[in-house]
Amino acid sequence: MAKLVFVRHGQSEWNLSNQFTGWVDVDLSEEGVKQAKNAGKLIAEAGIQFDQAYTSVLKRAIKTLDYVLDESDQLWIPVTKSWRLNERHYGALQGQNKAEAAEKFGKEQVHIWRRSYDVLPPLLDANDAGSAAKDRRYADLDPKAIPGGENLKVTLERVIPFWQDHIAPKLLDNKNVIVAAHGNSLRALTKYIEGISDEDIMNVEIATGQPIVYDIDSDLNVLDKVKLGEDK
Amino acid sequence: MAKLVFVRHGQSEWNLSNQFTGWVDVDLSEEGVKQAKNAGKLIAEAGIQFDQAYTSVLKRAIKTLDYVLDESDQLWIPVTKSWRLNERHYGALQGQNKAEAAEKFGKEQVHIWRRSYDVLPPLLDANDAGSAAKDRRYADLDPKAIPGGENLKVTLERVIPFWQDHIAPKLLDNKNVIVAAHGNSLRALTKYIEGISDEDIMNVEIATGQPIVYDIDSDLNVLDKVKLGEDK
Repeated sequence: MAKLVFVRHGQSEWNLSNQFTGWVDVDLSEEGVKQAKNAGKLIAEAGIQFDQAYTSVLKRAIKTLDYVLDESDQLWIPVTKSWRLNERHYGALQGQNKAEAAEKFGKEQVHIWRRSYDVLPPLLDANDAGSAAKDRRYADLDPKAIPGGENLKVTLERVIPFWQDHIAPKLLDNKNVIVAAHGNSLRALTKYIEGISDEDIMNVEIATGQPIVYDIDSDLNVLDKVKLGEDK
Repeated sequence: MAKLVFVRHGQSEWNLSNQFTGWVDVDLSEEGVKQAKNAGKLIAEAGIQFDQAYTSVLKRAIKTLDYVLDESDQLWIPVTKSWRLNERHYGALQGQNKAEAAEKFGKEQVHIWRRSYDVLPPLLDANDAGSAAKDRRYADLDPKAIPGGENLKVTLERVIPFWQDHIAPKLLDNKNVIVAAHGNSLRALTKYIEGISDEDIMNVEIATGQPIVYDIDSDLNVLDKVKLGEDK
């Protein structure tokens, strides 16, 4: 049996300013740092020892992981960072204020973009200033793999190969794994490992900075799921 | 041509209390954190973009690296941690106050342990409480590879295989590399790449938190060496 722990990054600066974030590399807010440290304390109290950590290439997830590993005194474990664990790409909505977007496109439309499983947001072109195609961290990526905007369905399709190639083999080898990532990349993983339907997954909320601990058996079935610090 | 940058970790808590540190996983002091952030600012000002980072499995080096990468906005680059980049193992001296050790063993003897290239310190047994053999982070290591104490010669012998297997291939591939490590693991690398003699290397001091930038050619020769922030 292996432990699999998910931690969604703490509050970011754009949560505060109510902007769509997606692949924009926004930092943690002060509150977000606190949440990340608290997640690390909960891991330490639970006595969970990791063999491997995974995170995205976005600093709000990387820093959350670092705080968790530091607080639980296991900063030395190997960390693999991948674009496949990035947040859902929010297309041309990235950087826009959510309230302003609701005024511009209509509340209903924005709700659909945020909550439907398979409707894409307005896309960002590879030539647009904010495109990931211009970002050095994606320079080794097939340009066709760089999204102009994603729904949860597309997010899941790029997250699961990472699960299958990296995370699952470790769990099958009885290694304890932590994944520090984002609301929607973790939602994709949650849907996949718990077998949640397309309809139901959009109602699954993953709290920021609250470690979710799965016990995983040798067939990758979920034996148990506990949210740490639930009673706080 | 590739850039190779060495950063020695900032001041640790045991620098303050004047204790032998070695493989003990001591944290950065407040001053050490400042030094690490400053190193990151110097890297950012110099505009150096890394492709790969290497560090030890000791938190004072890992955190120094993280501060450097954060300050220069490249926290997303891949980081590989290895015991081979650890500080020189100080054997049974680890944890001892340096002044007290000088009283106990004689000033002359302690000077020899600190400054000779090939004299070993008093060794720690694998059964001793402080032995790395009891530490989970070395559980996958051949027990014969876990030192009971090292001089610079032995340190170099375990550092250079890491250079040859990991760092050198990246430089030969024109990748820019940062190594955040320790006084003696960096001294070993410096000796090797600059061809410094056994006698002279013990007088080479590597300042904490000051990035050393090498230009390396396609035969791994040093074309240039600059210490950032030298005039400050």
